[in-house]
Amino acid sequence: MAKKAVLLLSGGLDSATALAIAQSQGFEVYALSFAYGQRHKRELMAAQHIAAEYGAKEHRVFTIDLAGFGGSALTDNALNVPKDRLDEDLARGIPITYVPARNTIFLSFALAWAEVLQAYDIFIGVNALDYSGYPDCRAEFIKAFETMANLATAHGVENKQRITIHTPLIDLTKAEIIKKGLSLGVDYGLTTSCYDPDPQGRACGHCDSCQLRLKGFRENGMVDPAEYAA
Amino acid sequence: MAKKAVLLLSGGLDSATALAIAQSQGFEVYALSFAYGQRHKRELMAAQHIAAEYGAKEHRVFTIDLAGFGGSALTDNALNVPKDRLDEDLARGIPITYVPARNTIFLSFALAWAEVLQAYDIFIGVNALDYSGYPDCRAEFIKAFETMANLATAHGVENKQRITIHTPLIDLTKAEIIKKGLSLGVDYGLTTSCYDPDPQGRACGHCDSCQLRLKGFRENGMVDPAEYAA
Repeated sequence: MAKKAVLLLSGGLDSATALAIAQSQGFEVYALSFAYGQRHKRELMAAQHIAAEYGAKEHRVFTIDLAGFGGSALTDNALNVPKDRLDEDLARGIPITYVPARNTIFLSFALAWAEVLQAYDIFIGVNALDYSGYPDCRAEFIKAFETMANLATAHGVENKQRITIHTPLIDLTKAEIIKKGLSLGVDYGLTTSCYDPDPQGRACGHCDSCQLRLKGFRENGMVDPAEYAA
Repeated sequence: MAKKAVLLLSGGLDSATALAIAQSQGFEVYALSFAYGQRHKRELMAAQHIAAEYGAKEHRVFTIDLAGFGGSALTDNALNVPKDRLDEDLARGIPITYVPARNTIFLSFALAWAEVLQAYDIFIGVNALDYSGYPDCRAEFIKAFETMANLATAHGVENKQRITIHTPLIDLTKAEIIKKGLSLGVDYGLTTSCYDPDPQGRACGHCDSCQLRLKGFRENGMVDPAEYAA
C-alpha cells in the first residue's frame, strides 16, 4: 500500500511542483487547500484543477476566516499589493502581503488530518530563496514546527512514529523549481501565482509573486504559460 | 497602557481560571473561542458569559470544522464519550475524546491574532496533572510551540520581542485550580466542563471531565455549583 502524505496545495507554481515530487516519491497524496479570505480566490479553482489532474487521492478545501484578523494586503482589499518592487527591496524585510501565522495555521490543519489518516508525512512547497521574505517559509521555522508536531499528537506520542515535514523546494531557485516540475510533467498553465489578479483572473505581472515567477521562466528560456493582463 | 494578551477560552473551569489569573497579572485580555464541531456546544455560551462577566476587552468565536476530520468522540456523535472510568484508567493512555491537533490549531489562531494585535503573550489553561492524558496539554508540547511561534511570525523575527505562551495551571491539581480561582472571585457556576451534556445542557457527572471536576470541588470541601442531570 502506498504511503499517505498530506500536502498543502495553494494552486500556485510551488505547491503544484511539490505535489508532483511527492507522487514521484510514491506517496498517495491528500491535498489540503484553504479559503482563508484571500483576494486571489482564483487560486482555489487552480488547486481543484491541479488536484484532479494529478490524481490526488482526496482534496479538501477548508474555510477559515483569516481576513477577520486583518493585517495583510492578501486578505484586506483596503491595503495595496506592492507592485514592481526592485530586487533589493524584494530581498529586504517582510512585506505587507505576509499573512500573520498563515503557514503555522495551515500546517496545524495538515497535522490534524494526517493524524486522522494515520499519515506521517506532510508536504509544503515553501521556498526560502526566491521568496517574499515571509518568516514562516524558512527552514528553521519548519524544523521547529516538526519538533512541535511530534510532541502534539497521539500517534507521535504513542506509536513513536516520527512525523516528517517535507520541504522539497526549500533550497531551490524559482528557475530550478520550474525545471524540476517540467521534468515531472507539471502543466504550469494550470497554476496561478498572482497576488492581485484582475476580475477575469489574469495575473498582474507586477506583484512580488508574478515577478519571481516570470524571472523563473525567463531563466529557463521559456514563456510563462499563465495568462497575464495586457 | 495595559499589556495585551490573547487567551484561549473554552467556557470550562480551567480557562475561566486562566482568564482571572491573566487579569490579576494586569493583562488586557482578548479571548478566543472556537466552534469546532464539538458536541458540547453549551461551552460556547458559557465562554460568552464568562468573557462578558469578566470584562474581556474583546471576544471572538472562530468557526472551524474539526468534525470534518473525524477521529474524536468530542466531534463525532457516532463515538461514545467514555463514562465512569476508574482513576487508573484516567491515568493511562490517550482517550477517544482527544481531538487531533486541537491545541496546535487553537494556539496557531491565537498566534495569528496576537501578531495582528501586537500582543506578545498568549494564555492557555492546559493542565498536565488532573487531565485527560492529551499529548497537547503537556509542558514539552507548549515549550515546543513557543519556540516555533518565535520563528513563525514577523514580529518575532523583526522586533525580536519574544512571544510567551503562559500556562498558569499546568502544575496545579484540579483542587488547586479551583482554590486559586475562588480566591480571584471566579464564579464557577458560569463554567461548564462536561463532554456530553444532556439536551438541557446539564452535565452528565460521569465523563472524565466531570469526574475530575467533581473531585476537585470535593477536595475543596465544596459542592460544584454547575448543574448536573439527576
